[in-house]
Amino acid sequence: MAQFTLGLDFGSLSGRAVLLDLASGTVAAVAEAPYKHGFIKGELPASGERLPHGWSLQDPADYLAVLEQIVPQVLRRAAAQPGSIAGIGLDFTAATVLPVQKDGTPLCFLPGFRQEKHAYVKVWQHHAAQAEALAMTRAARQELPGLLERYGGSISAEWLMPKLWQTLKEAPAVYEAMDHYLEAGDWLVWQLTGQLTRGSCAAGYKALWNKQAGYPPASYFTGLDSRLAGVLDKKLAGPVCPSASRAGRLSRQAAARLGLKEGIPVAAAMVDAHVAVPGAGISGAGQMLIIMGTSNCHLVLAEEEASVPGICGVVEDAVVPGYFAYEAGQNCVGDLFDWFIRNLLPAGLKEQARRENVSEHLILRRLARELKPGQSGLLALDWWNGNRSILNDADLSGLILGLTTSSTAAEIYRALLEATAFGTKKIMENFLDHGVGFDSVTACGGIAAKDPFLLQIYADVTGRPIRALQNSQLVATGAALYGAVAAGVLPDLTAASQLVQTGEAVLYQPDTANSLIYDKLYAEYCLLHDLLGKEGPAVMKRLLAIRQESSL
Amino acid sequence: MAQFTLGLDFGSLSGRAVLLDLASGTVAAVAEAPYKHGFIKGELPASGERLPHGWSLQDPADYLAVLEQIVPQVLRRAAAQPGSIAGIGLDFTAATVLPVQKDGTPLCFLPGFRQEKHAYVKVWQHHAAQAEALAMTRAARQELPGLLERYGGSISAEWLMPKLWQTLKEAPAVYEAMDHYLEAGDWLVWQLTGQLTRGSCAAGYKALWNKQAGYPPASYFTGLDSRLAGVLDKKLAGPVCPSASRAGRLSRQAAARLGLKEGIPVAAAMVDAHVAVPGAGISGAGQMLIIMGTSNCHLVLAEEEASVPGICGVVEDAVVPGYFAYEAGQNCVGDLFDWFIRNLLPAGLKEQARRENVSEHLILRRLARELKPGQSGLLALDWWNGNRSILNDADLSGLILGLTTSSTAAEIYRALLEATAFGTKKIMENFLDHGVGFDSVTACGGIAAKDPFLLQIYADVTGRPIRALQNSQLVATGAALYGAVAAGVLPDLTAASQLVQTGEAVLYQPDTANSLIYDKLYAEYCLLHDLLGKEGPAVMKRLLAIRQESSL
Repeated sequence: MAQFTLGLDFGSLSGRAVLLDLASGTVAAVAEAPYKHGFIKGELPASGERLPHGWSLQDPADYLAVLEQIVPQVLRRAAAQPGSIAGIGLDFTAATVLPVQKDGTPLCFLPGFRQEKHAYVKVWQHHAAQAEALAMTRAARQELPGLLERYGGSISAEWLMPKLWQTLKEAPAVYEAMDHYLEAGDWLVWQLTGQLTRGSCAAGYKALWNKQAGYPPASYFTGLDSRLAGVLDKKLAGPVCPSASRAGRLSRQAAARLGLKEGIPVAAAMVDAHVAVPGAGISGAGQMLIIMGTSNCHLVLAEEEASVPGICGVVEDAVVPGYFAYEAGQNCVGDLFDWFIRNLLPAGLKEQARRENVSEHLILRRLARELKPGQSGLLALDWWNGNRSILNDADLSGLILGLTTSSTAAEIYRALLEATAFGTKKIMENFLDHGVGFDSVTACGGIAAKDPFLLQIYADVTGRPIRALQNSQLVATGAALYGAVAAGVLPDLTAASQLVQTGEAVLYQPDTANSLIYDKLYAEYCLLHDLLGKEGPAVMKRLLAIRQESSL
Repeated sequence: MAQFTLGLDFGSLSGRAVLLDLASGTVAAVAEAPYKHGFIKGELPASGERLPHGWSLQDPADYLAVLEQIVPQVLRRAAAQPGSIAGIGLDFTAATVLPVQKDGTPLCFLPGFRQEKHAYVKVWQHHAAQAEALAMTRAARQELPGLLERYGGSISAEWLMPKLWQTLKEAPAVYEAMDHYLEAGDWLVWQLTGQLTRGSCAAGYKALWNKQAGYPPASYFTGLDSRLAGVLDKKLAGPVCPSASRAGRLSRQAAARLGLKEGIPVAAAMVDAHVAVPGAGISGAGQMLIIMGTSNCHLVLAEEEASVPGICGVVEDAVVPGYFAYEAGQNCVGDLFDWFIRNLLPAGLKEQARRENVSEHLILRRLARELKPGQSGLLALDWWNGNRSILNDADLSGLILGLTTSSTAAEIYRALLEATAFGTKKIMENFLDHGVGFDSVTACGGIAAKDPFLLQIYADVTGRPIRALQNSQLVATGAALYGAVAAGVLPDLTAASQLVQTGEAVLYQPDTANSLIYDKLYAEYCLLHDLLGKEGPAVMKRLLAIRQESSL
């Protein structure tokens, strides 16, 4: 009796499983567990080797351990029979990639490679392949202009190809020894089904794959580096499997390890943010979904393909078959607020938070809420991690302007919140200016569920109502929907998105008086954005160069 | 038996007295006492009235109380006979002004004006006469271009005339009731001598007075406001008395109150920073003196008058007769570092300072010292209180650029220290570009004596050796020298500056490797300085306008 669909959501630091009830569209149970080693930065545990600046690794053994913990747990919590699971869908952070042998064994599991940093998973936030990304962008600009149009104009250092090339250059033995280089999500699906497939979602957004054209031509790669000859056949083999289609069936071994029944259909791996689209009940054009957390991801479905500068990518069929899915993003949102707390929270406020037993963010927000827009005279550019959209430039940096001797910590904190809202408005206007329309905005993710103050600022700054979903399981739920469609128990993602119960939503309406002031501040934000990020003097880049020189 | 000269130094928050031994040129004793009410901000004690933003008042009764405490004390400490004092010199913060009656009684002493805020002393940092200053600058630009050339191009809201006009506009009864509006230093000299005089130093720098031309013509004032007709005769009467000349002799009443002998010559009141010039042993051209503390004051003597944009002023004979004394300044130095500690010092560092029983500045400096120049990638514009020199613009504000999620409190703090050094370098280059030369730099004041880390940064940034005087009594000593010259026991300030023992000096030599990096950072500082302070988009001014609008 098929009753549930299983969603597996592998985030940056933990994995979670949900069982979605196919009759009611509600979540029957949830289980979650953290990766034992989290991010591996600073030093490699197996050798004690110091990792260079920008490196961020993971150990794939952690994923398997989490998988084997959360699946039995979620089944127990829902008292679900092994036979009651109709399908399995899985999402993973994207551009989190690893080298494996022919049989799927990660190179870092082999004694000979245990102490080799390039043999581990390189996480999306591994930022050490910048030189490779720049060279790839330059070459693509000359040879493959059409390709760059689909990626907002540049190739990111986070993506699979620059990371693979970095491996070749810095650890040719690892390059030589690997039979496949693939997304961690695809690797986990392989562990479930026993078959290598590559989900079209990550392949499209992070590996330059396209439904019509496939991967870039071999000549592009050999032009970059003659040692990349044959890279597509030798390292990137394996069928690209469309989103919401079946990648395979649960193998006997995997079923035994997880307490499930052999043969359950498993969907092609998906990118984590993207499964939130049907998870949030969206399956058509005209709606923007913002997944808000450490970073912001902005997704819009459209019927047409348009060239939009500065986005992360547009991929056909990647999220909902039949649509082009546009992705843009800001890489420093919750991360920015945390930076402030970590580095500049004054002792008095820290002590107050401790005394009242509330979060330090809450203490700052309480003070920041008493200010009117514009009252502090402060304005920030939210580029603490560089700028993802719409400037695509990792070498930019943050700015605060308007400081006086009466500026307070709460005023600065509020300016940081507002800066991320201005960044979102910039992304919205960029979509609209280039023909990708939307007339409603939905927010989900950790911040959308627990930060009404920030959501109201976003509504006021953008001048748009924002519907914030309070359900924190939307991503894992989305993964479950892909599993159900792949298994054929739901006909398509439209039906899936209609079935799902997204739970409570709060509608934030823009306050007109605030919006009028924010319009003025946004004009100044845009001016600084263009002056320091585009046409103006490259102060930030030169400071970075001085910094690198001075740190030698 | 004339043995000593008495120096009285009235600073922002306290007064101090020194007895200088005329034989040895050394300080025989010091006494100091704070003003009971300090700065009166926020609310007026006599009425509880809320004072507007930017207001800063003092009660002249506090000056008298301090005077009557420190003079007898310093005499006792040196075991000096009342007859052993040859002369008295007095300096005071400049543009600290008050309205008085014909007999010198401050209006705020009268029951009818006790609750009237305009009847009190308006301190130099009272920043509420901006509209008046702008209107005066505009009118002067048309009618008196030569006058503005002596003041770097604009009239400051801090000065006597804008404050007087503000009083007329906002409290006509106070304007009507006052017989004189004068500097607090001149008022104190009057209390000592029984005679109204005005020191040419403050008159020249802060009241538009000039040795050749006197005050601006009456038509200038009536053009501003018809009610200012007769202002020079009615409110600014009293002889302007040259620096280092005798304003009068100690009256019998004052002598009795202070425990001194009647008839001691009293020099004309001086501006506090300026007396540091002979106090530091300087009496000729070619040397820059920087008085470093809450703010920085840069003084250079020269034989010629030149038009230097953006300085505070150039006044003939004001410091050392026979020379033109050029003054420039930065209004946010120690104040900036204190702002950081007050608002953004993280709890961990605060706790560390407490545990080790050292200052919070020291804890930050210790971390900041471990960084190399340029290593943080940060750059700041030091305009937290606007910019005094060389932009003369109170509406500018501070900026920090280059922030990343790895930026630390110590890195930001160091960027603030460096920003003030860049500001000083800008002032130096401006002097040199406009024909005011100097080939040595001496620093004095609180920071020069106790902050070797900052002094080294100044040497590295400016690429010049800086001689830092460790003696913290140089200002009061300077005042004593003016008293001795006015009394005729020293022939002139050259002799006085040769007599004085300035004490220990530390020479900071620029580190060439650091200077090379700072040259690059300074180029970026200049670029931002001009872009945001001069020709570029007036982002800071528009933010201020939005702020004012939003605070209504």
